[in-house]
Amino acid sequence: MNYRIKKQEELEMIVVLKHGVTEQQMRNLIAWFKDQGVDVHVSRGIYQTVLGLVGDTSDIDVDLLRMLDIVDAVKRITDPFKKANRKFHPEDSVIEVGESKVKIGGGNFAVIAGPCSVESEEQIIEVAQKVKAAGATLLRGGAFKPRTSPYDFQGMRAEGIELLLEAKKETGLPIVTEIMNANHIPLFEEVDLIQVGARNMQNFELLKELGKLQKPILLKRGLANTMKEWLMSAEYIMAGGNENVILCERGIRTFETYTRNTLDLSAVPMLHELTHLPVIVDPSHATGMARLVEPMACAAVGCQADGLMIEVHNNPAKALCDGPQSLTPEQFAKVMGKVRKIKEVVDECE
Amino acid sequence: MNYRIKKQEELEMIVVLKHGVTEQQMRNLIAWFKDQGVDVHVSRGIYQTVLGLVGDTSDIDVDLLRMLDIVDAVKRITDPFKKANRKFHPEDSVIEVGESKVKIGGGNFAVIAGPCSVESEEQIIEVAQKVKAAGATLLRGGAFKPRTSPYDFQGMRAEGIELLLEAKKETGLPIVTEIMNANHIPLFEEVDLIQVGARNMQNFELLKELGKLQKPILLKRGLANTMKEWLMSAEYIMAGGNENVILCERGIRTFETYTRNTLDLSAVPMLHELTHLPVIVDPSHATGMARLVEPMACAAVGCQADGLMIEVHNNPAKALCDGPQSLTPEQFAKVMGKVRKIKEVVDECE
Amino acid sequence: MNYRIKKQEELEMIVVLKHGVTEQQMRNLIAWFKDQGVDVHVSRGIYQTVLGLVGDTSDIDVDLLRMLDIVDAVKRITDPFKKANRKFHPEDSVIEVGESKVKIGGGNFAVIAGPCSVESEEQIIEVAQKVKAAGATLLRGGAFKPRTSPYDFQGMRAEGIELLLEAKKETGLPIVTEIMNANHIPLFEEVDLIQVGARNMQNFELLKELGKLQKPILLKRGLANTMKEWLMSAEYIMAGGNENVILCERGIRTFETYTRNTLDLSAVPMLHELTHLPVIVDPSHATGMARLVEPMACAAVGCQADGLMIEVHNNPAKALCDGPQSLTPEQFAKVMGKVRKIKEVVDECE
Amino acid sequence: MNYRIKKQEELEMIVVLKHGVTEQQMRNLIAWFKDQGVDVHVSRGIYQTVLGLVGDTSDIDVDLLRMLDIVDAVKRITDPFKKANRKFHPEDSVIEVGESKVKIGGGNFAVIAGPCSVESEEQIIEVAQKVKAAGATLLRGGAFKPRTSPYDFQGMRAEGIELLLEAKKETGLPIVTEIMNANHIPLFEEVDLIQVGARNMQNFELLKELGKLQKPILLKRGLANTMKEWLMSAEYIMAGGNENVILCERGIRTFETYTRNTLDLSAVPMLHELTHLPVIVDPSHATGMARLVEPMACAAVGCQADGLMIEVHNNPAKALCDGPQSLTPEQFAKVMGKVRKIKEVVDECE
Repeated sequence: MNYRIKKQEELEMIVVLKHGVTEQQMRNLIAWFKDQGVDVHVSRGIYQTVLGLVGDTSDIDVDLLRMLDIVDAVKRITDPFKKANRKFHPEDSVIEVGESKVKIGGGNFAVIAGPCSVESEEQIIEVAQKVKAAGATLLRGGAFKPRTSPYDFQGMRAEGIELLLEAKKETGLPIVTEIMNANHIPLFEEVDLIQVGARNMQNFELLKELGKLQKPILLKRGLANTMKEWLMSAEYIMAGGNENVILCERGIRTFETYTRNTLDLSAVPMLHELTHLPVIVDPSHATGMARLVEPMACAAVGCQADGLMIEVHNNPAKALCDGPQSLTPEQFAKVMGKVRKIKEVVDECE
Repeated sequence: MNYRIKKQEELEMIVVLKHGVTEQQMRNLIAWFKDQGVDVHVSRGIYQTVLGLVGDTSDIDVDLLRMLDIVDAVKRITDPFKKANRKFHPEDSVIEVGESKVKIGGGNFAVIAGPCSVESEEQIIEVAQKVKAAGATLLRGGAFKPRTSPYDFQGMRAEGIELLLEAKKETGLPIVTEIMNANHIPLFEEVDLIQVGARNMQNFELLKELGKLQKPILLKRGLANTMKEWLMSAEYIMAGGNENVILCERGIRTFETYTRNTLDLSAVPMLHELTHLPVIVDPSHATGMARLVEPMACAAVGCQADGLMIEVHNNPAKALCDGPQSLTPEQFAKVMGKVRKIKEVVDECE
Repeated sequence: MNYRIKKQEELEMIVVLKHGVTEQQMRNLIAWFKDQGVDVHVSRGIYQTVLGLVGDTSDIDVDLLRMLDIVDAVKRITDPFKKANRKFHPEDSVIEVGESKVKIGGGNFAVIAGPCSVESEEQIIEVAQKVKAAGATLLRGGAFKPRTSPYDFQGMRAEGIELLLEAKKETGLPIVTEIMNANHIPLFEEVDLIQVGARNMQNFELLKELGKLQKPILLKRGLANTMKEWLMSAEYIMAGGNENVILCERGIRTFETYTRNTLDLSAVPMLHELTHLPVIVDPSHATGMARLVEPMACAAVGCQADGLMIEVHNNPAKALCDGPQSLTPEQFAKVMGKVRKIKEVVDECE
Repeated sequence: MNYRIKKQEELEMIVVLKHGVTEQQMRNLIAWFKDQGVDVHVSRGIYQTVLGLVGDTSDIDVDLLRMLDIVDAVKRITDPFKKANRKFHPEDSVIEVGESKVKIGGGNFAVIAGPCSVESEEQIIEVAQKVKAAGATLLRGGAFKPRTSPYDFQGMRAEGIELLLEAKKETGLPIVTEIMNANHIPLFEEVDLIQVGARNMQNFELLKELGKLQKPILLKRGLANTMKEWLMSAEYIMAGGNENVILCERGIRTFETYTRNTLDLSAVPMLHELTHLPVIVDPSHATGMARLVEPMACAAVGCQADGLMIEVHNNPAKALCDGPQSLTPEQFAKVMGKVRKIKEVVDECE
């Protein structure tokens, strides 16, 4: 693979040996590194010696190194993700979704809208038509719902997907819905963009299975996960061969209680540096409050998000779940108007 | 079920109506509650009216209530977990593991020991024999390994389980190993205690499948999850019919970096109040450092843990993963000696 | 005070009594509440009784109530902050700073710019002139510097304030600088806006002293503090008689390490609901990276911040502290251009 | 100072230069390091060059280095605290408190007990006598109280200290109380151990003033601070000349809500590695619940704490603050009995 060739030139890791390490101990360690296909540059100090590892160190376990008797400190210089790394893939990835090839990333702005849960054919079709009219480019709707309590509504499951497909037929909008179980993959055959929810961001078995598909994956950030862990989860999918990954910031857990989560918008420009993958923002789940969706959607556009994911329900007060964070179609249309204007200014300034 | 009968007497939730709500609006809301099988006590104030909901409110969605135009505030008085709740099951649960019926909970102290990963037949049998000699009552060993990076060693998988079964045959110790995928359940038929790892604590689809088994489940706490969420995950398994759940505190994520996680030992006595399920402690994963295992194991016994889970490797420096936190069998024997003495004092004082 | 009158009508707290409380016990508790000047509405259920407290409960200690033998649960319905509360002061506060009465809040957008530390007369005057030319309305500069290490540069202290006053004379810009010690108040006599840093947000003794001044206070959010705690700290200043408080969001501590802090932009619209005080945003400290300042400044404007605080240095690479997050005057001018355009769109849409 | 001599031999920091740095650029940087009194070891690789800094780098600002155009990465190898560092002071510090020279640390176990707030002469003397009888070696009592709300009881202040002195006269117990303002130092002249509370852990101006005293300081860990930051705050006091610092773990903020804070007991053995200063544990504030004090006190002893700080009140239900976490003198005596027995076992095993 191309990135491996580039990687060979990189100083990837530094290992500081302890004072008093013998020549033989050092030679043994260097031999072991070379066995792993890694080149070693030795820098001797009076008191300590530093080894610089050059080449692909992705198989070297930093924790293991740290515990060796002769090692004082280890520092990884490069990031552990590779396929997702902008360093080895400087161009923005543009992900195409559905038969209509809706583009996300690289200057293509996408708006995913729809209800938290699919509830009925009328509901999903009505919402689909209205969000399309207001400018949404994809339709979302929950079929399988991850709920903290086993006693809460768990979604319409397979039937929900059927109804989404009806809405797609009706409106032409590609559909997005969440998968919770690799066994359900066959049910997702006509789903255009498969969502992995926050609680499954590190469900590595699921990620591996999704890596075998060619369908785009919308990977939400885990509740208390770092960007590095998030990119490593994207790497799981990409390492399997599916490079069509879109990242979705949806708020992280903090000590704050007035808002449900804390939307980490600085992740957007930061990720644009770290990775070539598109980054979209979900202000609905992040804040848990419909009236914060407009300002946070505008803020997301202001800091260069590649898209938005917004909950819209024809009757929020009766939504079977997450009603308090849903917009009405009318509110959504208003948000879209403002978002479009800010997007124009932002694009102009580039 | 018994707990439902008890629940009927409980005031479970309080709903404060907004100033100015009409008599008709209030009557409609009360009628809706009664439809859900919940009784309502009305308390009228001059400015506001308070509804007290009596009965089983587990199907009532608090977020939905909060968004209603006529509702000012909602407060759940009782905990949302029921089968795991000590209130409705005052006696300690005693979980029996394996054909030898090793007991955990209700005064029965268990020690689970073994390597992070199963690496070879010699390794696992040697470790099994040594930890048994030192007093361990169950053998652990990782076969399927959740790793943050797709490039790290992912475990021996099915073959690892085979080797654990060899070690069980050799020593008689019941075996504990982690499941990552509901599809693997058939491979776990002879595993005595199935572990759910921190990253899968809210993999609800997996929990539901485990709820259909009768085998005991060791449920580790998620990296940044509260006790309430943890108990709700136990509830997922129990609601399915499998009440054999053991909780394992393994450290939570905090801002601290000297230790890998922060072992939350106050969770032990707190959980003893909240639930009848046994609570064990894993000082190895929590701290990530072999030399902190002894003090933290002693501390865990001091605050009434029902057991310990400790990593032991015959050659920690060569362990394929998590070596730095593994004890040698000799170190483990020393820890066991100290733990036993403290346990005696703690038991005496009861 | 006006807000007390309004408060009398409010249901502020709910106290759920335990099952089995006697009539006499309840009467005693009610009498005690009435002694505190609080009215009580009693709602009797079959199993439990609920007391609704109406009036000013700010002196009632919730924790104390919770521990009473006869109390099952306590829920505060209203927020514990009063003077800062928008409920009792629906109009936006407009804070005037300096002799030139620069306005912040209520539609008045302010930009505070300048170096992290004052380093020399030339430096501060040059920066002041350049940020003024680019549109800044106030000049910032650190004189007393809170540093984690006692071995790091601690600021020019009193001399730094002198130099800021020179720059004010030169440019007419009101000046903003941080106070760390109530004893230094006399040195701040000509400072126009006194900043309280994140680490002193709960230095209650300092807040009380600042409450005795009439000078505006810029109160930064603590590193791991909630909005409620932040507003309670504003309340400390306001309760002393100084209602000229401006809130500054500067990022909170999370598990993320790529960015120094996590800028909590959803705090901006949330605070606009909770309080009438102006809210400004500091993208420089929040991210710790100059190149993230532009997108985050634009995002802040997009979600209705009342102003920005941005670090600008004439030679960032040589800044004595926090260089990596400083913009050059040229970069700052570019950010200002973009910010102004987004602000126009946002204002238009209102 | 001795530690500086030792430090000269240390490799303290590693600086990785970017690919393509010229010989001249590198020579300039090395010259700058030498100006700071730091020696540099150069290790040239084919693609990158690594500089190892040897000597005292405490004045070198890592953030500044990181932003230099020619620098790729910086890694500090040694901890930034020096006087508190066990590396340069391998023996346990033993702190002596009061005229009676009560020892803490180095095998000397201390128990500090008393009420959250001093309320009256009778109260404090009664509690003092009872905790002394049960085995406490120091008396605590709050005079100046940090409260989140300006409307809560703020302590008896100077009068509270007077009453503590009465109790000391009566019982001979050295007294411990919290300082919130450097201006109050004269009032603390006869206080034997001055406490710095969690919210003032980074009140650097206060720490500097306490560094000028010779009186022992009890430094509580901040609500969301790391051990490194905590030790840097100890370093502030020690750098001023006062090396009599005792660390007190009192729980950190996490997402958990059942307990008030999360007691970080693994900090105890970890700190014993990092520093020679004594470490005591406050289970009362950490958990906020009287009934968790016993198990957590036992756990603290199990992991080698040098002492305990426990809240005791003669009438917890009427305590003016923090009542729910106070023990009665009788409960305290029971805890002490159990603690003593576990301490014996722990000591025996050493």
